[in-house]
Amino acid sequence: MKNQVNLSAFGSAFKGAFATPPTSNRCAPKVKCRLPSDSKLRDNLEAIFDELPITNGMTLSFHHHFRNGDSLVNQVLDIAARRGLKQLRIALSSVFPVHAPMVEHFKNQTVTHLDTDYMSGPVAEAVSLGVLANPVMMRTHGGRARAIECGDLHIDVAFIAAPTADAYGNLNGTEGPTACGSLGYAFPDAEYADKVVAVTDTLVAYPLQKISIPQTRVDYVVTLPSIGDPKGIVSGTTKVTKDPVQLRIASLAAQAIEASGLLKNGFAFQTGAGGASLAVAHYLRKVMKAQSIVGSFALGGITGYLVSMLEEGLFERLIDVQGFDLDAVRSLQTNPNHLEVGAAMYASPFNSGSVVNQLDCVVLGATEMDTQFNVNVVTGSNGFIMGGSGGHSDAAAGAKLTIVTANLIRGRLPILRDEIVTITTPGETVDVLVTEYGLAVNPRRTDLIERFSACGLPMMTIDEMKTLAEDIAGVPEPIAMTDKVVAVVEYRDGSIIDVVYKPEVKI
Amino acid sequence: MKNQVNLSAFGSAFKGAFATPPTSNRCAPKVKCRLPSDSKLRDNLEAIFDELPITNGMTLSFHHHFRNGDSLVNQVLDIAARRGLKQLRIALSSVFPVHAPMVEHFKNQTVTHLDTDYMSGPVAEAVSLGVLANPVMMRTHGGRARAIECGDLHIDVAFIAAPTADAYGNLNGTEGPTACGSLGYAFPDAEYADKVVAVTDTLVAYPLQKISIPQTRVDYVVTLPSIGDPKGIVSGTTKVTKDPVQLRIASLAAQAIEASGLLKNGFAFQTGAGGASLAVAHYLRKVMKAQSIVGSFALGGITGYLVSMLEEGLFERLIDVQGFDLDAVRSLQTNPNHLEVGAAMYASPFNSGSVVNQLDCVVLGATEMDTQFNVNVVTGSNGFIMGGSGGHSDAAAGAKLTIVTANLIRGRLPILRDEIVTITTPGETVDVLVTEYGLAVNPRRTDLIERFSACGLPMMTIDEMKTLAEDIAGVPEPIAMTDKVVAVVEYRDGSIIDVVYKPEVKI
Repeated sequence: MKNQVNLSAFGSAFKGAFATPPTSNRCAPKVKCRLPSDSKLRDNLEAIFDELPITNGMTLSFHHHFRNGDSLVNQVLDIAARRGLKQLRIALSSVFPVHAPMVEHFKNQTVTHLDTDYMSGPVAEAVSLGVLANPVMMRTHGGRARAIECGDLHIDVAFIAAPTADAYGNLNGTEGPTACGSLGYAFPDAEYADKVVAVTDTLVAYPLQKISIPQTRVDYVVTLPSIGDPKGIVSGTTKVTKDPVQLRIASLAAQAIEASGLLKNGFAFQTGAGGASLAVAHYLRKVMKAQSIVGSFALGGITGYLVSMLEEGLFERLIDVQGFDLDAVRSLQTNPNHLEVGAAMYASPFNSGSVVNQLDCVVLGATEMDTQFNVNVVTGSNGFIMGGSGGHSDAAAGAKLTIVTANLIRGRLPILRDEIVTITTPGETVDVLVTEYGLAVNPRRTDLIERFSACGLPMMTIDEMKTLAEDIAGVPEPIAMTDKVVAVVEYRDGSIIDVVYKPEVKI
Repeated sequence: MKNQVNLSAFGSAFKGAFATPPTSNRCAPKVKCRLPSDSKLRDNLEAIFDELPITNGMTLSFHHHFRNGDSLVNQVLDIAARRGLKQLRIALSSVFPVHAPMVEHFKNQTVTHLDTDYMSGPVAEAVSLGVLANPVMMRTHGGRARAIECGDLHIDVAFIAAPTADAYGNLNGTEGPTACGSLGYAFPDAEYADKVVAVTDTLVAYPLQKISIPQTRVDYVVTLPSIGDPKGIVSGTTKVTKDPVQLRIASLAAQAIEASGLLKNGFAFQTGAGGASLAVAHYLRKVMKAQSIVGSFALGGITGYLVSMLEEGLFERLIDVQGFDLDAVRSLQTNPNHLEVGAAMYASPFNSGSVVNQLDCVVLGATEMDTQFNVNVVTGSNGFIMGGSGGHSDAAAGAKLTIVTANLIRGRLPILRDEIVTITTPGETVDVLVTEYGLAVNPRRTDLIERFSACGLPMMTIDEMKTLAEDIAGVPEPIAMTDKVVAVVEYRDGSIIDVVYKPEVKI
């Protein structure tokens, strides 16, 4: 049974998706200065540890554009551990299986705090089991940018894996043998960290032509033999699914989008990288082609599928905060309609308007959902952390139409529950659940219910859908959990929307 | 006779070009928030005055990329005056003759403070005559960016004249019928002002392809029939001089650059837009072509002459903070090797390194110079303000070789004086004075004296050159000045390097 959570013990409790307007000022980092003769070049990371210096208790930040091909985090933490550093806070925008060595650093207290937006693999498992000294702070991608800009996440040293750099610290991710595409998640780190260390394997003559992160914020440029393996960017499938159930869900979702009235010239769209999400794009593409609809932009993590839609003229622009495959990397390098944006411009709730605010429609996933349309994408049905919001809550809050697609029954368990393990995205920002059995529309959206009815789409209430699921698969047993909090889930505005408990593990 | 100046009455007195490291933090503006449904579009400036609202005593900022073709400043100040607003501070990066209506606003106290980096025309004359209630704060282009970033110049409302905008506030200067090129001087204003108002005559579909200033900092987008006349960008000549004395000076300067050893592959260069400055580029171009030298970049205000050198492959990049003619505008729009930078990246002394730090050589002008190599570019020989540092002091401080070119005798007066009317750029950052009679090298630069001697360049000491000038033209009478301070000249680091007094005017 889920414990009663006293969220206010962990910060200001969530009050509603738009109920906490900002009251703070932006973070005000120390002003820096470089004499004209200063050189920023260093040829190893140890020199950086000595020179800054990096000391116990510091916050080191990293970005995740290399995804499961990243090697910089492990290199830096190995040095930290060898030097006997303790109590570091690691602010890594997402954690992947490649970061498994971090578990040892948790155990020896080299790392005692972790801030991230998503985690999977051994680190997520270790966190779930309580190996890290303190609860992980889990944010959204936009919320991380906000936390950095507002000073909630103060970064002592930002490390930026830069596929190409010049000696004065101008950086991009699109050139060089290890090009990873957008560096968008590192933009806030570069802008607000006390010290910024760029790490590159490809140094080019000054000045770099295409500058994603400028020299004005970069203090050191370290050259290393390798910063990561871009083949690791592609984690999982980025091809349209062939599963017939997922295809039916995707087809229904596309029909819902069409019925919403939003699918017309200027349509702005975001979807995930998985095969089921891409299947929605696949169906939309057919409609857009048939009706000669030209969308304004597709947003988010960018896949080759969206690149092909750009190249076919079905979207005017791609807006890219991270590349999900090498087609996306190539397109960002060569296509002027493929725009790179930072995490704050992508999704922060607290600036003069991020791109998610301009979305017509976003298609998102869920591991669980309750009848209030609250979504869990942090924990799996076993209570273990296996993901995180990423841009989930951000896009849901921004888009005019937020659709969650999911198999109603997954692993023999209904995804609809009375109570979900972790609330990631509040139901007030979710409009439609699409499953293989039809659509359930948030009762707030009477306009959508009317439109979907008029088009004859198969609808039922969320309660009816939950009953149907339970008729098929039964009511699942609640997960047994301990009272140890292993992660705090922060909503994009900085309020605390939920916490994650360590599950009870039967040995 | 020049009065003895107590600089510390106006701020921290200048102590040396690199003697005042930063101790402050960056400015921390209030965090903003826009709901997804908010619209930023307004169809007139009056709505902005009402909505913000703009009130007495506020600081309104503007940029000068339209130069003498600007119309936004006059439009905004006309509204302010009609509304009876008083005590406004105008932070306009440069003031041109087109801004003459501002004089009336000085007189009726609508405007009581002015911050600028350069001024010419009726406003400069009025300021010199003491019409403005308070001394003008004169900064360098890099110093203005620093002052904004560090909070010394707090901007309530930044107005940005944007030749092209989308409805959510993404802006550029390179597209549309009134394209003016780079918007670099407006970057700090957009980043740190409390409110940012973009004003455009060309609204395009969201999202703009080439984004110079992003939506995340822009609060309103106002559409107006006209924001300026790009033909006014070209103020004065941007063609190579045909004057034989200026050509001799330019030739000597080019020979000095060649003799310095800096003119080789990777050469980084800045020069002004005037005919004499371009003549130096003209001679360098010949040498670079003859010796197959490819420079890395040319910097600063960009002219068609530098564009042609880029297109000929004599430089790898142009780095552009403002366009000086329509060829520069066209090139920035179309050539990926022509980079737009903001004022802080161009020239601020207080960040992790601005582009001026990477200059090999800059060629600058002077209205006067003393035997310590201190340069005046603020006041003319009559004591009236007729210019300003712009990027003069910034480039001088950054470049490895700073050359001042000037006719030794101008208007029958020697440019070398025992005491100059206004110190703009400190002599420690100036290496060589080139006149039609030869070179005078700063004694600090024994390396240059050796190199120039080895090449047989005509040299004399600065004292010898001053004596020569006085032999030809006599010792000029000092200008009679009152004790009323009409302008304070701030060095790029925020210290006060000089003040300007109102000259005595014989009626």
